[in-house]
Amino acid sequence: MASKLNATADALYQSVKNLPIVSPHGHCDPSWFAENKPFENPASLLVTPDHYVFRMLYSQGINLKDLGIGEPGAQADPRDVFRIFVAHWHLFLGTPTRLWIDYVLYKTLQITAKLTTQNADCIYDQISDKLEQDAYLPQALFDSFNIETLATTDSALDDLRHHSAIKSSSWTGHVIPTFRPDGILDPLDQNFLQNLVELASLTGLSLDTYADYLTAIRARRVYFIEMGATATDHAIDIIHTEWLSEPNEIYQRIKQGLETETDARRFYGHMLIEMAQMSVEDGLTMQIHGGSKRNTNRQLLLEFGRDMGADIPISTNWVSGLDALLNRVGNISSLTIILFTLDETTYARELAPLAGHWPCLRIGPPWWFHDSAKGISRYFDQVVETAGYYNLAGFNDDTRAFLSIPARHDLWRRGVALHLAEQINQGLFGRTQAEDLAQLLSTGLARQAYGIGM
Amino acid sequence: MASKLNATADALYQSVKNLPIVSPHGHCDPSWFAENKPFENPASLLVTPDHYVFRMLYSQGINLKDLGIGEPGAQADPRDVFRIFVAHWHLFLGTPTRLWIDYVLYKTLQITAKLTTQNADCIYDQISDKLEQDAYLPQALFDSFNIETLATTDSALDDLRHHSAIKSSSWTGHVIPTFRPDGILDPLDQNFLQNLVELASLTGLSLDTYADYLTAIRARRVYFIEMGATATDHAIDIIHTEWLSEPNEIYQRIKQGLETETDARRFYGHMLIEMAQMSVEDGLTMQIHGGSKRNTNRQLLLEFGRDMGADIPISTNWVSGLDALLNRVGNISSLTIILFTLDETTYARELAPLAGHWPCLRIGPPWWFHDSAKGISRYFDQVVETAGYYNLAGFNDDTRAFLSIPARHDLWRRGVALHLAEQINQGLFGRTQAEDLAQLLSTGLARQAYGIGM
Amino acid sequence: MASKLNATADALYQSVKNLPIVSPHGHCDPSWFAENKPFENPASLLVTPDHYVFRMLYSQGINLKDLGIGEPGAQADPRDVFRIFVAHWHLFLGTPTRLWIDYVLYKTLQITAKLTTQNADCIYDQISDKLEQDAYLPQALFDSFNIETLATTDSALDDLRHHSAIKSSSWTGHVIPTFRPDGILDPLDQNFLQNLVELASLTGLSLDTYADYLTAIRARRVYFIEMGATATDHAIDIIHTEWLSEPNEIYQRIKQGLETETDARRFYGHMLIEMAQMSVEDGLTMQIHGGSKRNTNRQLLLEFGRDMGADIPISTNWVSGLDALLNRVGNISSLTIILFTLDETTYARELAPLAGHWPCLRIGPPWWFHDSAKGISRYFDQVVETAGYYNLAGFNDDTRAFLSIPARHDLWRRGVALHLAEQINQGLFGRTQAEDLAQLLSTGLARQAYGIGM
Repeated sequence: MASKLNATADALYQSVKNLPIVSPHGHCDPSWFAENKPFENPASLLVTPDHYVFRMLYSQGINLKDLGIGEPGAQADPRDVFRIFVAHWHLFLGTPTRLWIDYVLYKTLQITAKLTTQNADCIYDQISDKLEQDAYLPQALFDSFNIETLATTDSALDDLRHHSAIKSSSWTGHVIPTFRPDGILDPLDQNFLQNLVELASLTGLSLDTYADYLTAIRARRVYFIEMGATATDHAIDIIHTEWLSEPNEIYQRIKQGLETETDARRFYGHMLIEMAQMSVEDGLTMQIHGGSKRNTNRQLLLEFGRDMGADIPISTNWVSGLDALLNRVGNISSLTIILFTLDETTYARELAPLAGHWPCLRIGPPWWFHDSAKGISRYFDQVVETAGYYNLAGFNDDTRAFLSIPARHDLWRRGVALHLAEQINQGLFGRTQAEDLAQLLSTGLARQAYGIGM
Repeated sequence: MASKLNATADALYQSVKNLPIVSPHGHCDPSWFAENKPFENPASLLVTPDHYVFRMLYSQGINLKDLGIGEPGAQADPRDVFRIFVAHWHLFLGTPTRLWIDYVLYKTLQITAKLTTQNADCIYDQISDKLEQDAYLPQALFDSFNIETLATTDSALDDLRHHSAIKSSSWTGHVIPTFRPDGILDPLDQNFLQNLVELASLTGLSLDTYADYLTAIRARRVYFIEMGATATDHAIDIIHTEWLSEPNEIYQRIKQGLETETDARRFYGHMLIEMAQMSVEDGLTMQIHGGSKRNTNRQLLLEFGRDMGADIPISTNWVSGLDALLNRVGNISSLTIILFTLDETTYARELAPLAGHWPCLRIGPPWWFHDSAKGISRYFDQVVETAGYYNLAGFNDDTRAFLSIPARHDLWRRGVALHLAEQINQGLFGRTQAEDLAQLLSTGLARQAYGIGM
Repeated sequence: MASKLNATADALYQSVKNLPIVSPHGHCDPSWFAENKPFENPASLLVTPDHYVFRMLYSQGINLKDLGIGEPGAQADPRDVFRIFVAHWHLFLGTPTRLWIDYVLYKTLQITAKLTTQNADCIYDQISDKLEQDAYLPQALFDSFNIETLATTDSALDDLRHHSAIKSSSWTGHVIPTFRPDGILDPLDQNFLQNLVELASLTGLSLDTYADYLTAIRARRVYFIEMGATATDHAIDIIHTEWLSEPNEIYQRIKQGLETETDARRFYGHMLIEMAQMSVEDGLTMQIHGGSKRNTNRQLLLEFGRDMGADIPISTNWVSGLDALLNRVGNISSLTIILFTLDETTYARELAPLAGHWPCLRIGPPWWFHDSAKGISRYFDQVVETAGYYNLAGFNDDTRAFLSIPARHDLWRRGVALHLAEQINQGLFGRTQAEDLAQLLSTGLARQAYGIGM
């Protein structure tokens, strides 16, 4: 029976393995596709930009500077960086990072040698050679990866010139922006007031009153939609929403830098509801990524900047956090809000019951630390029985490591196939239904949830 | 080995499959058995009363009104309701609801056609026909389900006339009430003061002092016991118990409507301990269902009333919440208190350690969203190693969907069998012990924990 | 495939089964090895000292007094205690306690009869006979268990005379102390001020100022290190660390008994950071056992004393709790801090992300209630994907039940083997890598994390 299970899983996997990649949320740099320049070197391709990689090396005592990270690492020789990475490859045993990089090396880059200290230089050279070839330019890789749509994540203040360039080029790749407005919504953002100045300048609008401010935000949304955006995105540490009866009062205090931290949290909580209301108007799907405490290592933040691997998940309370938002717009079934959690205890306790009730909600795929074989398995086990499959949002790769995109979708599709094979085995449904669900989970639900490729 | 595991699981399942059903906690309407009238139609049998069903349909944009729910749905044609349900049957893929309804349709109602849009009308007619037949009247179904005992859940102010009618009828079905006193204990209940008026009137007692109030509650308990009750039940959002040295002071404030919310929570927390102390006196098993935030969708509450699928679990702290109660009565081993959680993180962290220490405690079966194949598996995995089997309370179906009772017990028994087969496989014990445990988990522990059928 | 999985697991288990036992954290009494007297009787060997055992019996209504526990139990006949235990042996079905005791009885004590009521007396006599034999004296058992190192846990005020005696004896067993300073760090300890008096007397130092106090603590650490200690240990209910700019102020208030509870918590939180800083200086590995609410049954505490099975886990917040400590010393890679949790939800959400970033952190093995087959499986499933294997601390048996040590390491090694076999099966790595990891997880990581046997 177990071999039957494996055979079923494999058959289901084969049925979705070659579907196009729908990537509705991630952090690739649109300039790669606009400019189509070769990727620089193996270190900057695989090590330097990937906090999954360097956080693990750092946890075992390796200096970030020696990994070529940030200003302090600017002088590091990429070949040395790659050697350090290879010398510590055993640290990644059991992690999805190891699976993804194996996939990138052996399937995408067609390296044949094993990743050992002895082979490090030789593999470095092989990758370097590949990166010079036309077939490994960003656009060519995008095409060969069979990517149907790739969404980037962009500041609300971004001029989207790379997206514009891609749109007006002859290349047919579908790269779209995502509206990330936290910098102009959250008074706790350290550049908030400066961001408002930029917002005024970009839109040519005054921001004197709260009404003006909303008008300016709407203008940015319109521009993002023109450039292809179908979604917005928020990253929030502690979920809080509340509807303010007099938002202009707090807004004025904030503009004068007189707000308290409570004012700031209340204002941002209010603006999340405004964003949901604007989504009702303009149809942008709303994403909420909740529960990551950012940049918790203050020494690294000072020396190396943000996103240095010290973002740590915290307990999340979706039920009280979203109460005000849901009671204002949650019953509108044309609205789509996708929730992403780093607190797996909320899958069965909060997210599945919420999504199994409110018409606007969908559960995002396992995120970040949980985008892994066992994370995927726990996700299905804990959400499906209460929310079913149709309240899910399919898959996101959520990566800035472009080369890992096929690897990540492949891991998800294998996870989907294994889950569905187990469901068949336990008598929940038959093979035909599982095949339909495999397709849905691989591409269909993502298209629906984000309104893309439809 | 896996096929050996399946074979063992199947053999264990066969050994308990036909045991009588012991249903010590649920929400069936006693009038069904007192009056023994035919069930009305397929929609009111399978869709309208089952919040598991309509919450899922609502989450995908279907209007509750169109499902015949509440006042607004009063005009809906049951055949249309049934059609909508069938047209969205795919939403239930992977959920226990689908397994239960499949069981009801194919085993209980002996429908042969598949539940498809094409067959909806035909199946509707087939079910309608069945419901007219004597074999499908409530009492006949009860008998054919082989139900040994069925407990209902009844307001402390209920006159129990249906239970009385059942007792004095010639029908031998064992249907007993359960004492649910929250409405007369919790000052936050919106009808609390009115409920006290009713309590006074029902018992013919004055409620001037706190002592009078306790006397009146005792009188109701005596009556419930006379009518067969063996248990009480509480539904609590945030678990809190505390012993007040001067409860009469708060009681007087409450009677005058002068209490604060804190007063109210403290008073209710005190009354839970009083209830435990009364259970020590009169032997009623005490059930605590904790951690459901009720009616969180305020628009639905206004339009459709309570229990519309918007009850959402919240994080629960059993350790501090029960501290005062346990330190007052927890060492009394003749007392039985059964704890039900919607926060699975408390299984291993709190409930199993608590029940593996305090003589009065038993862990209730997986509840509500967790009464599912995977929920059952997680439950056993997380409670048994610390609490063993003998601190569990067996199974509850906890349903208002009468027809689903055999389906739910069947799913539990399959889950028990699978769990025990895995334990055998991992060398924890042998087949004979597993067979004994299968019996205990299917019926014996429920009888013991509730003092029924003994 | 499943039988292949079992075969692989078995082969991996065979490869580590006979490795020496490295036991870097536990609660054995060093006098056993210093004095090498026979263990008293089967009840005091298996029942009386083991709160895993008597808590379960107590939960099912058995009086602690009848089990020979504490002062009240002093008169209990050990044979009667053993009979009660045997009569309730079924309560332990499904628990690790049953597996451990089976191992002790059948492998260590070579009992052949089954543990039934009928055999209780006969088995009691057989064990009693064994305990008289030279081969069952503490030192002989230690040697036959193939224990490489055994660490005890000792009050900072302990004179370590048993350790001293062991060191100066001809016996070669390696038994080392662990520095447990909570009694002199935590003002909420009920003997805190008296402990300071003892600290002054033991070290011959004044404790007038905060600086004096630190000097005295350092003196104790030096002494422990001389006696072989390689680690410290803290048991904390609610994790809190903070760096005080003027610790002497609170210190003076505390010495006068004028501190508030907040002062006390802040001071202890500060002292944890001081301890980490001292570990940077002297190289002692720091252990933090967090999240156990101790002695929650006040009646038992009064009558029987501490550690009566009423320690219950609570929710733990490692992220905010350790923030101050980590931001002060967390980037120092020569420092090792091992975190132990009773809140499994923190494995994937907090501990794995923390240990996968901070150089000083390692995740301790599944602790207490979670040191079980399923607990081990959940642990690997939830920590490895984010933290890898090299941020783990190997295994601890953490027991005061000396005879159970081989049983506990055996259960861990079986768990390791099963986990690694599943990883091979899922394609994460090959057999050679799994064999290396099995060795590491059985002994190597514990040696590294505690700096022992190297």
